[in-house]
Amino acid sequence: MFFDLKHTDVNSKARAGVLNTDHGSIETPIFMPVGTQGTVKALSPRDLKEVNASIILGNTYHLYMRPGHRLIEKMGGLHRFMGWDRAILTDSGGFQVFSLKELRKIDDEGILFQSHLDGSYHKFTPQLVLEIQRSLGSDIMMVLDECPPYPSTRDYALKSNQLTIDWARQAREIFSGWQPLYGHRQWLFAIVQGGTFKDIREQSARALMELDFPGYAIGGLAVGEPKDEMFDITDFCTEILPEQKPRYLMGVGMPDDILEAIERGVDMFDCVIPTRNARNGTVFTTEGKMVLKSARFKEDTKPVDANCQCYTCKNFSRAYLRHLYNANEILGLTLATIHNVHFYLWLVRQARKAILQDNYVSWKERILQKITRVVEN
Amino acid sequence: MFFDLKHTDVNSKARAGVLNTDHGSIETPIFMPVGTQGTVKALSPRDLKEVNASIILGNTYHLYMRPGHRLIEKMGGLHRFMGWDRAILTDSGGFQVFSLKELRKIDDEGILFQSHLDGSYHKFTPQLVLEIQRSLGSDIMMVLDECPPYPSTRDYALKSNQLTIDWARQAREIFSGWQPLYGHRQWLFAIVQGGTFKDIREQSARALMELDFPGYAIGGLAVGEPKDEMFDITDFCTEILPEQKPRYLMGVGMPDDILEAIERGVDMFDCVIPTRNARNGTVFTTEGKMVLKSARFKEDTKPVDANCQCYTCKNFSRAYLRHLYNANEILGLTLATIHNVHFYLWLVRQARKAILQDNYVSWKERILQKITRVVEN
Repeated sequence: MFFDLKHTDVNSKARAGVLNTDHGSIETPIFMPVGTQGTVKALSPRDLKEVNASIILGNTYHLYMRPGHRLIEKMGGLHRFMGWDRAILTDSGGFQVFSLKELRKIDDEGILFQSHLDGSYHKFTPQLVLEIQRSLGSDIMMVLDECPPYPSTRDYALKSNQLTIDWARQAREIFSGWQPLYGHRQWLFAIVQGGTFKDIREQSARALMELDFPGYAIGGLAVGEPKDEMFDITDFCTEILPEQKPRYLMGVGMPDDILEAIERGVDMFDCVIPTRNARNGTVFTTEGKMVLKSARFKEDTKPVDANCQCYTCKNFSRAYLRHLYNANEILGLTLATIHNVHFYLWLVRQARKAILQDNYVSWKERILQKITRVVEN
Repeated sequence: MFFDLKHTDVNSKARAGVLNTDHGSIETPIFMPVGTQGTVKALSPRDLKEVNASIILGNTYHLYMRPGHRLIEKMGGLHRFMGWDRAILTDSGGFQVFSLKELRKIDDEGILFQSHLDGSYHKFTPQLVLEIQRSLGSDIMMVLDECPPYPSTRDYALKSNQLTIDWARQAREIFSGWQPLYGHRQWLFAIVQGGTFKDIREQSARALMELDFPGYAIGGLAVGEPKDEMFDITDFCTEILPEQKPRYLMGVGMPDDILEAIERGVDMFDCVIPTRNARNGTVFTTEGKMVLKSARFKEDTKPVDANCQCYTCKNFSRAYLRHLYNANEILGLTLATIHNVHFYLWLVRQARKAILQDNYVSWKERILQKITRVVEN
């Protein structure tokens, strides 16, 4: 069985499960560190294993652009190319193309866009993004979707949604005739769209459920809508989506966002926040957020987080990390990234434990009080 | 015994020895990776151990400027601050100040200079650079020296040399009354100067030898003079310097330079080349130098060096490293630095083996033919 739902918290919709891939089993809820260009920025594969990453995300758009999926196929697929033998999920490229804004044009067949690297023209179709992901050899692939901006008119969201459903249908058909390229299985997820319109979200979810995908993503959120609307739509979608299939909330988010979404029945997450913030010198701890460059840490011999078991916290002081940032040393980026990714993965493991003990909501309330603070010294 | 000379090659002056510090024994000849600002750029302490680094270099000038030796002393010294429990050598700061050129002014007492960071005025005296290095707690400290530029007049070199000798005498006296700050022993080396004038070099060496330092550096080379002159002066100095004391050729160099200097009786080396070149995408291999960005490695599934046992070569292809450089990914810098430092340390270990087998010169000729090539694919 691909997804094994082990337990649902008695007081909430929070779930504990296991995703079984040919590159290992993944305990859910899970956070997937983002490896945009074939590397999680500043981390080596052994760093990723040490922080307990069981699955990472690769960006179809970026890898298609550079070095190209054909090259990666020649190299034996993305796992071998980047030296990562655990699971990989690749997105559809739809969101990156959405971010290009005026450089794209959408029609029934797909999305025409210009490369951010050299301005060359490309067209993502449901078939092409599948072919790219087949060449990459990701364990979980995503269908091409169209992500309506926020705010969108109801009319735009409706038309866009129809496109996403049509593309998902095409993708499902194409994929059903394929054998995997590298021996290991690939699973294709669909993406529920519909903006902030509940009836369109429901229409999207039901149409995609009819196509019977092994997993469903909730897309088109965290694109500018208020947080309560994001959680409301997430909650609404998980009411409809099948219990026995994994649910993936794309691009979310801050530690507290993830905990709120877990409570609403989400199993999988990805976000650049832990890695990007680390490179900017912001770390997450069990006592709150810390801005490492702050002068208050100048002579602070304590580790970033005394409760943390990561390499960074076991070996280095806040004062040393602050110095590395001030001196623009690469090691600072690596050490902070190790810590942040470790923290995110620790957090979802703790969430899972709480779910299995049927006390998710009270655990969440307690931990949120601590991790949403700012560390003063 | 601090330095234990184990063997001298029968056909050359190449020596195999052991430096005994309170942070471990160091087999010589040795290469010391440069950790300018309290980190060897792009490497963590565990990376350094994995590539077999037994001693690294810290820059007194840079650490004095940022974060400051007083701060590092509060943090328990440089070893603890940077999480490195093997040996550290710190330079005197003289060379960095020499590089500041028009920002410095020399008198009998020391060197007045302006900070490259904020333009503030500072004066390095023999006592201050000792105090700084005492606070840092390096295992091997260097006396303040004055490095004459190349070319220099004979008159300049003579006067400069007298200054270096006076400062060494002062340093020796001050240091003899000190107890170490952190319990472990610190050894003070003097620096032979004298430009390319052999008689002044001899005068320098003999005066410093009278002061009986536990080790001697050869400074003021690799500052623009022709290579044959550099080797000639090195050879000349090692003829004079005491056999039972370690000899350190400062700031040298390329792999072939190091092998030539070993043949001339040098035991210790430091240089930014392996780390800096790695960040620029140039790696050293047993088959020659490689420019990783080159298009010829685009689809090259081979490791950087098939003969190398480093993490990079055991896990990643040339094509992947090339991709990381093209995509400006931090991991590329780390992987290439791991390889280059590993290569340098492998090279000096091989040199040591050849010395112990009395075939250093023929080994050197053979390996130079290979490592001085350029890898074409």
